[in-house]
Amino acid sequence: MLKRTISLICLLMTLTIPAQQSGGYSLSLDDLIPGGSTYNNYRPQMPHNLRWWGDKLLCVEGDSVISVSLTEKGKKEVLFTLEGLNGLFQSKNKKISTINALSFPYPDKDNIIAFDTETDNGMMEKLLFDLEKRDFIASFVYPKNAGNLDFSPQSNRLAYTVDNNLFVSLAGVVSPLAVSAEEEEYITYGGADVHRNEFGITKGTSWSPKGTMLAFYRMDQTMVGDYPLVDISAREAKLKNIKYPMAGMNSHEVTVGVYNPANRTVIYLKTGLPKEKYLTNIAWSPDEKSIYVAEVNRGQDTCLLNRYNAETGELEATLFTETNSRYVEPEHPVLFLKNTPSQFVWQSERDGHNHLYLYNTDGKLLKQITSGRWDVLSVVGFDEKGENLFIVSAEESPIENHIYKLNIKTGIRTKLSGEAGMHTALLSVSGRYICDTYSSLAIPGKVAVIDTKSDKVHIVHEAKNPFEGIDMPEITVSHLKANDGKTDLYYRMVKPTDFNPSEKYPVVIYVYGGPHSQMVNNGWNSVRGWDIYMAQKGYIVFTLDNRGTSYRGHDFESITHRRLGIVETQDQMTGVEYLKSLPYVDANRIGVHGWSFGGFMTLNLMLRHPETFKVGVAGGPVTDWKYYEIMYGERYMDSPQENPEGYKETNMVDRAGDLSGRLLIIHGDEDPTVVMQHSLQFLKSAISNGTHPDFFVYPGHGHNMRGKDRVHLHEHITRYFDNFLK
Amino acid sequence: MLKRTISLICLLMTLTIPAQQSGGYSLSLDDLIPGGSTYNNYRPQMPHNLRWWGDKLLCVEGDSVISVSLTEKGKKEVLFTLEGLNGLFQSKNKKISTINALSFPYPDKDNIIAFDTETDNGMMEKLLFDLEKRDFIASFVYPKNAGNLDFSPQSNRLAYTVDNNLFVSLAGVVSPLAVSAEEEEYITYGGADVHRNEFGITKGTSWSPKGTMLAFYRMDQTMVGDYPLVDISAREAKLKNIKYPMAGMNSHEVTVGVYNPANRTVIYLKTGLPKEKYLTNIAWSPDEKSIYVAEVNRGQDTCLLNRYNAETGELEATLFTETNSRYVEPEHPVLFLKNTPSQFVWQSERDGHNHLYLYNTDGKLLKQITSGRWDVLSVVGFDEKGENLFIVSAEESPIENHIYKLNIKTGIRTKLSGEAGMHTALLSVSGRYICDTYSSLAIPGKVAVIDTKSDKVHIVHEAKNPFEGIDMPEITVSHLKANDGKTDLYYRMVKPTDFNPSEKYPVVIYVYGGPHSQMVNNGWNSVRGWDIYMAQKGYIVFTLDNRGTSYRGHDFESITHRRLGIVETQDQMTGVEYLKSLPYVDANRIGVHGWSFGGFMTLNLMLRHPETFKVGVAGGPVTDWKYYEIMYGERYMDSPQENPEGYKETNMVDRAGDLSGRLLIIHGDEDPTVVMQHSLQFLKSAISNGTHPDFFVYPGHGHNMRGKDRVHLHEHITRYFDNFLK
Repeated sequence: MLKRTISLICLLMTLTIPAQQSGGYSLSLDDLIPGGSTYNNYRPQMPHNLRWWGDKLLCVEGDSVISVSLTEKGKKEVLFTLEGLNGLFQSKNKKISTINALSFPYPDKDNIIAFDTETDNGMMEKLLFDLEKRDFIASFVYPKNAGNLDFSPQSNRLAYTVDNNLFVSLAGVVSPLAVSAEEEEYITYGGADVHRNEFGITKGTSWSPKGTMLAFYRMDQTMVGDYPLVDISAREAKLKNIKYPMAGMNSHEVTVGVYNPANRTVIYLKTGLPKEKYLTNIAWSPDEKSIYVAEVNRGQDTCLLNRYNAETGELEATLFTETNSRYVEPEHPVLFLKNTPSQFVWQSERDGHNHLYLYNTDGKLLKQITSGRWDVLSVVGFDEKGENLFIVSAEESPIENHIYKLNIKTGIRTKLSGEAGMHTALLSVSGRYICDTYSSLAIPGKVAVIDTKSDKVHIVHEAKNPFEGIDMPEITVSHLKANDGKTDLYYRMVKPTDFNPSEKYPVVIYVYGGPHSQMVNNGWNSVRGWDIYMAQKGYIVFTLDNRGTSYRGHDFESITHRRLGIVETQDQMTGVEYLKSLPYVDANRIGVHGWSFGGFMTLNLMLRHPETFKVGVAGGPVTDWKYYEIMYGERYMDSPQENPEGYKETNMVDRAGDLSGRLLIIHGDEDPTVVMQHSLQFLKSAISNGTHPDFFVYPGHGHNMRGKDRVHLHEHITRYFDNFLK
Repeated sequence: MLKRTISLICLLMTLTIPAQQSGGYSLSLDDLIPGGSTYNNYRPQMPHNLRWWGDKLLCVEGDSVISVSLTEKGKKEVLFTLEGLNGLFQSKNKKISTINALSFPYPDKDNIIAFDTETDNGMMEKLLFDLEKRDFIASFVYPKNAGNLDFSPQSNRLAYTVDNNLFVSLAGVVSPLAVSAEEEEYITYGGADVHRNEFGITKGTSWSPKGTMLAFYRMDQTMVGDYPLVDISAREAKLKNIKYPMAGMNSHEVTVGVYNPANRTVIYLKTGLPKEKYLTNIAWSPDEKSIYVAEVNRGQDTCLLNRYNAETGELEATLFTETNSRYVEPEHPVLFLKNTPSQFVWQSERDGHNHLYLYNTDGKLLKQITSGRWDVLSVVGFDEKGENLFIVSAEESPIENHIYKLNIKTGIRTKLSGEAGMHTALLSVSGRYICDTYSSLAIPGKVAVIDTKSDKVHIVHEAKNPFEGIDMPEITVSHLKANDGKTDLYYRMVKPTDFNPSEKYPVVIYVYGGPHSQMVNNGWNSVRGWDIYMAQKGYIVFTLDNRGTSYRGHDFESITHRRLGIVETQDQMTGVEYLKSLPYVDANRIGVHGWSFGGFMTLNLMLRHPETFKVGVAGGPVTDWKYYEIMYGERYMDSPQENPEGYKETNMVDRAGDLSGRLLIIHGDEDPTVVMQHSLQFLKSAISNGTHPDFFVYPGHGHNMRGKDRVHLHEHITRYFDNFLK
């Protein structure tokens, strides 16, 4: 069954989607920008709410839940309709208001369905219905303003938070169990936002495998500085303080509690001193006796994998320690083998790429399961027997994702996904089937089902091209050599729709360039709507993933450590040199636009290369890393105290006097991520140094403009390039 | 001595200053804008710190205090030098650090001088020095952070505030007397900022004529809403709440206390209920027994002149009541006759213009002293015998000020000031001499001394034209008829320096247009530096004082009541129609710029007449009067509850969707006057309605940009017109 062996050098891909000269309609920003009134008309039409129920693949169509055939395209069976369900529920005086509220809490029990609904007295209720008994078998009441709902089907318990506190609701009982009763405003329990949802943290609670105990985060922010946001929509503008620890300042303090609903006790893991650290990737042992925590020190160069006793909170063992001179960043909890609870899989970038390692619970490394100059991107789950893992990796190419079956014992990988592109995998409960949703620059979107017994792939859905009959630009994805002479950098170029190689066009570089990102890949969505809009207007749009971005290994990403923006700017300039070499590029009309880290990059490019860039639009930019948040800031820059020269070198506020082109800075006045202090400090410095950036504010918006205002934003950005670059 | 009788109709003036084609130097914004590095080189050079000491007219030159001849131009005598004074003080171990610190607390005693200096232990000290005794005769110690210093030479007592509290320092005593010991943050004593320095209030304390008692304001703002300003210059942006009562919301509460240092008691005037009212124009009776207060109700349509017993605080009498269906606005305290303490002069707009009325202390109106369709602008003081008052009025023309001697008994006025222009008068202590500082469009600046015995005028200083040898534009001041067919509106037009009547020029209208203002008059300073700068760049700059502005009587100003911006805009459009009728005006290139009320007017013009205005720059604009401050807002607009239709009609936020030209809005992010909520609400509405204003912020600035950043501001404004209007 070996279809592909390990390759040490990735394939370099060049892809070109030819221009499409077929119609006269010009797409508007409403068509192309999320939030636009007609945006959905130009999205590939894909199944909604895809999920497994046993080995049935479900999706929502209109007011129905459909079972999709696993082998035949377009074949489907209606399982539930809103009307039918409400007919079932009517005699019990219950009602489901939308089919999207229907859930299947027991993937392995095909007789039980669930939904959340509002009660007559203004509460919410989660109801479990037995299709065989044709009756409700459980009900959980919780308040309307509850958040972080976490249901344990194993024990029939529902955890949730209200404001700062954590509760557990039992079936049929109206009064919940209070896990916490904190009155201090800035101490919260069970919140998902601990450590800003980084380190793979997406939940603030974690039920033990049998649902008998609940691990949860407690976050104390009382020692953290306030950042004053102002809500101007009030009758008189109103203060909205947020806790915002900036790099080098006091951090918040996190602990992990364990709640036992049986005896209503809480213990805390004895994670000890210093209190400032990152408690990440919490996982229960299969026997529920222990909790594994990946503990990262504030300096973020050391990670301990610790095991705590879930009953006493005592530290049982530090299984191993990972260090890195730049930073460690565990993002995946331990994963116990299906049939061998004394062994687990651990993901680590320790050899330079993210790979899988097999450990036993004594902390002994049994073997490295995968290796090579490519990253494992995610572990999907086990096959039926537990002998193989399904993984998604960038082995085929850094700009594609593919799904593999990985034999744990032999390390042999079998590529399961078929066509080129970006694949995401959803495994059925049994481990037999994988639902593969994918797209590429040429494929708007497909859904395939992989039968992992036969490795056969059946395409069950194919979206048609939403841009059919519309003039579309030529899109090229290719690569350049970085200034180190060896690193390949991928770029995408979108040419004007009416491209004529003998003319000269203005270029807008769209840049992000920061960690945890990839702008250029072989996916339908990687081409931004605005790229197409600008191409229609006669601009070339160019995007390059510089060193510092994702899926290329730790060295590629972390080379930027302590001096963010330096190497990234060099790589972007490699792109500019290439652009200048093209006969159809007007080197006197090069602009740049980016948001957040991309706003920071826009400033770097405008201010370090004023001779090159005529126009820039920087959205929500970091201008001085000392105003940025502690965790991200210190991971990539260390603290201002530890790295004064790095903070100085990367400080855009100090360079505001170097501005010579036209620069528009845009900020949301309630941005809690890159606070508006960044932009205002830049303006202050520019004013003091006699330069003239432009500025715009989106009142009431956070770090990004969402909804219909996002269309306005892109009109505003476009207008600026039209005014000064066209 | 009658030189001029009362005229019922003012003379309409047209003035033209011809262009000056004499050099090649173009003035820079640094030359022309306050705060510019070379700004002072282009200001008329006038005597510094002019004041009377007895009948000696003093000024400062370099490190010396000079006595200016009262009859001969340029003749002067050095009275004191810094070096000489420090020689005098040396033996006493005291030092004066700058000649500007020298003061003359007893205008009638020519042997005593004073100055404020820092002590060795970090305090401040006010020292009185007797030139005859060659020794210090008094010292008052006060802290460095003291404010609102108020010295009574009569009783040798110094009142001052530190933070919220009021103190009195006695000569030679280190520990001051504490008038108040308030710990509540938002209750203050002795502050000048009560009622936002309107109603002629410039001080928060008032010594009785002999200095035996001190009247003071107490202001309680605890019931007023907070407006959150944010200081982004801190390490982490910091909240700076201000108390900002918006129209229709809770007002602060003010009372008047009287402190008696002899027995250290405080009583409060029993001003009673409602607590929300305006206690204005506090004045002591000559015998120190009573205090007169002009009390205005919150609705500002009624003013009571009340007399209180200064010892008990009891209300003794309401002398009279003034009402007006629009608003009353007393700005001048009662002025007791020099030799008849039972009679006082009261200023009122009750007959439609500001005039003088003679009352006795029973509240009986003895006579109206002045009348006519012109305004008394200020009362300068009495002559030696107390038979005549000196006043400044607009009788000659609404766009000039002149000084008159007014016989109290007969009402006969004698014009004392000579040349046409804007005159300010400073009376010597005896009442014999007036120092007349004046300028006109043709006169950069002169100082004359008027001997009121002979009414002879001697010019003692004449500034030369600072623009000599520089190309200067033609400047015209003239008038148009408003759309009511009868009201004259004055305008100023500044033509391009290289004006050629056969070309077509773009126009920038500079507008203020709000109450308490006059932009067009026959004064050197009325032509703004930016007007000249823009004229050099080829723009016509046009400014018109619409109805609603000052010195034209109550009807002219208050016609805008309850609907600010409506009539004002009509009048500005009268100016536009005139401009369009000129062959050298390009009607397709008309722009507008204004600040504060002028920013509001800019929005009115851009949004009510989008077909006319291609470009606008609105600085610190009011966009919705409900966000404006209570006192000013309710005076001109009533409250939002009382006048919903007026607030709606004048709401620019609601009209943001009508924007079609280019509009730049500029705001200081710490503006405590027109809070930034105005601009941000406008942007929010524009975004929601799909229009595209531009925006700029001056971080750390208040309602106006001051210092060197003011030059940047004008570069920024100019650039916008150059980008989109030129």
